[in-house]
Amino acid sequence: MSLARNIIQGDIRAIARAMTWIENEHEAKEQLIDEIFPDCGRATVWGITGPPGAGKSTLTDQLITRERRQGRKVGIIAVDPSSPFSGGAILGDRLRMQQHATDDGVFIRSMASRGHLGGVAGSTGDAVKVLDAAGFDTIIVETIGVGQTEIEVMGMADIVLLVLVPGLGDEIQALKAGVMEIGDLFVINKADRDDAGKIKAEVEYVLGLKYAENMAAKNPVLMVSALTGQGIDDLHHSLYSYLNLIRSSGTLEQRRRDRLAGELRTIAAAKIEALVHYHLDFEDRLDSWVEMLYSRKESPYGLMNGRIESLIKELTDK
Amino acid sequence: MSLARNIIQGDIRAIARAMTWIENEHEAKEQLIDEIFPDCGRATVWGITGPPGAGKSTLTDQLITRERRQGRKVGIIAVDPSSPFSGGAILGDRLRMQQHATDDGVFIRSMASRGHLGGVAGSTGDAVKVLDAAGFDTIIVETIGVGQTEIEVMGMADIVLLVLVPGLGDEIQALKAGVMEIGDLFVINKADRDDAGKIKAEVEYVLGLKYAENMAAKNPVLMVSALTGQGIDDLHHSLYSYLNLIRSSGTLEQRRRDRLAGELRTIAAAKIEALVHYHLDFEDRLDSWVEMLYSRKESPYGLMNGRIESLIKELTDK
Repeated sequence: MSLARNIIQGDIRAIARAMTWIENEHEAKEQLIDEIFPDCGRATVWGITGPPGAGKSTLTDQLITRERRQGRKVGIIAVDPSSPFSGGAILGDRLRMQQHATDDGVFIRSMASRGHLGGVAGSTGDAVKVLDAAGFDTIIVETIGVGQTEIEVMGMADIVLLVLVPGLGDEIQALKAGVMEIGDLFVINKADRDDAGKIKAEVEYVLGLKYAENMAAKNPVLMVSALTGQGIDDLHHSLYSYLNLIRSSGTLEQRRRDRLAGELRTIAAAKIEALVHYHLDFEDRLDSWVEMLYSRKESPYGLMNGRIESLIKELTDK
Repeated sequence: MSLARNIIQGDIRAIARAMTWIENEHEAKEQLIDEIFPDCGRATVWGITGPPGAGKSTLTDQLITRERRQGRKVGIIAVDPSSPFSGGAILGDRLRMQQHATDDGVFIRSMASRGHLGGVAGSTGDAVKVLDAAGFDTIIVETIGVGQTEIEVMGMADIVLLVLVPGLGDEIQALKAGVMEIGDLFVINKADRDDAGKIKAEVEYVLGLKYAENMAAKNPVLMVSALTGQGIDDLHHSLYSYLNLIRSSGTLEQRRRDRLAGELRTIAAAKIEALVHYHLDFEDRLDSWVEMLYSRKESPYGLMNGRIESLIKELTDK
C-alpha cells in the first residue's frame, strides 16, 4: 500500500516517514504531498510564537491537554528555524511535553531548517498537510523565537497566539514593528508576577493605537500561568470564540486562500531556479564568470542580466 | 557628478544614500553597484558574530580603536536579520560605538532585513562593495545573533570572529552543528569571569575533534575582556597574522571567488523569478489557481510543475 494511503489512514510510522521525507527533500516528496492534498483542509492550524523563555512549550502542553479532554487528535510541529544556540533549550522544552508521548491522539515532531528554497515555512506547510490528511483535528505549529522566519512560519496558521512575559521591558516597543500584526490573541504568561499588569497595559496600548478599528476580538489579551494552569481554560475558550468569529466573517477562508497562493509562489520560485540554472549551464560556466568578476572585467548585475537576456532570446528564437 | 563617482571619492553623504538605495531596492541600485564594482576588492572584510549578549559591539568598538590608531579607515555594517525583539538592544549597542561618531575615518550603518530575494546577505554584500569602493580599508560586518541568516551574512567576510562568553553552558554542544565551521578565530569575551576557562576548554575540544588536521591558526581561541580592553591587542595581532596566513595560502582569494559565485547565484535566482512570473502572468492567474487548489481540483506541486513545463514548451516552440 502506498505511503499516502497509510498516512490518510492515520498510520503513525507513515506520518513519521513523511516528515523525514519533507525535511530531507526526498525526491518523491512532491508526489506524496500531491497525493494526500485532496484529503487536506479539515484540520484547524494554531500558531504559537513569542520570544525565547516566554513559556510557549508549557502553554502548548496545557492546550494539548484541553484538546484531548474534548476528544480531538492533536499534532504538534515544533519549528526551530535557525539558531543552533537554542539546541539545548529545545530539547528541554520538548521533554516537558512527553506526558503526551504515550497518547496515540498526540503526535509531536521537531523540524529544523535546512536552508532550502521555500525554507522552513515551506517545509512546515507540507508537514501540516501530512497531519491534516492523517486526520489530526488540531495542528499546533510552535516556533522557538520570533524573527522573520518565524513570522513566515506563522503564515501557515489559521490563528496565531503571541505569547509574552513580564520583564521584556522596553522591548515591547520593538513589538510594534511587525510582530504585533501576526497575533490574533495575545497571551501574557507568568501572569502571577508583579509586573504582569504592566505588560498587559503596554500590549493593549499598542493594540489600541493600531488596531482600534478592526480589532476582531473583544478581549484579545489574556493573562495565564502556563505552569499552574491558571487562565488556560479561559484562553482555550477565547481561542474557539475567535475561530468561530473568523470562520463566520470569511477571514478564515481568505487566510487559507492566501496561504495556498503563498505556497504556489514558493514552489514556482524553486522550480524556476532549478530550470533556468539548467538552461544557463550555470554550474559549468560559473568558474569563468567568477574569473571575469574577480579580474573586474565584468560587473555582477551586468553579467547576469546579459546572460539571462541571451538565454531568453535563444529559447524564443528556436 | 554621478553618485558612483561621489562614492569612489569617499563622500559620506553619497555613501549613506547608496546604503538607503540598497535597503530599499532602489531601481538604479544595480547600475550603481556595477559602476562602483571596478573600484572594489581593496578592503579587508571582517565578520563578527556570536550569540546575543556576547559583547560583540563592545569588541567591535575596541577593534575600531586599534584600526584607527594604525591609520586605517573603518566601515561598520551592523546587520539585524530578523528579530524585532532585539530592537532595543541594537540601539543600545550602537550607542556604545558613538565615541567614533565624530571620526571621519569611521562609518557606521545598521541594516535590517526586508525579506527580498537574496535577502540580507545580498544587501550586506552590496553595502560592503559601497564601503570598499569608497576607500575604507577595513569593513566590519557585525550580526546581532547567530542563526542561518547570520551564517549567510558571514559568507561576505574574509575572516570571521566568533564571539562567545562563559555561561553558555550545554549550548556549546549546539555549536558543533554549523556555527563552528564559520569561525576563523574564536574570541572568549568576559574572560575575567571564573568560568571562562571552562568554555575555552570546550571550544578547543570541539575544534580539536573536528579541525585537528586543517587548523590553520596555531592559537585560534583568544581570551579577552572587551570592556576593560584586556587581550584586545593580542586579538588584533592574531587577526592580522591569520589574514597573512590565508592570504599567502591562497585561501583568501578562494573565499573571495566563492563569494562572487554566491552573488551570481543570488542575482540569477532573483532575475529568473521576476522573468518567469512575467511570462506566466503569475499575478493575473494566481486567483484562479488558488481556486483550483482550494476546491481540491488540483494539487500544488502538480499544478505548478504543469504550468512551468507548458511555459518552457511555449517559449521554445515559438
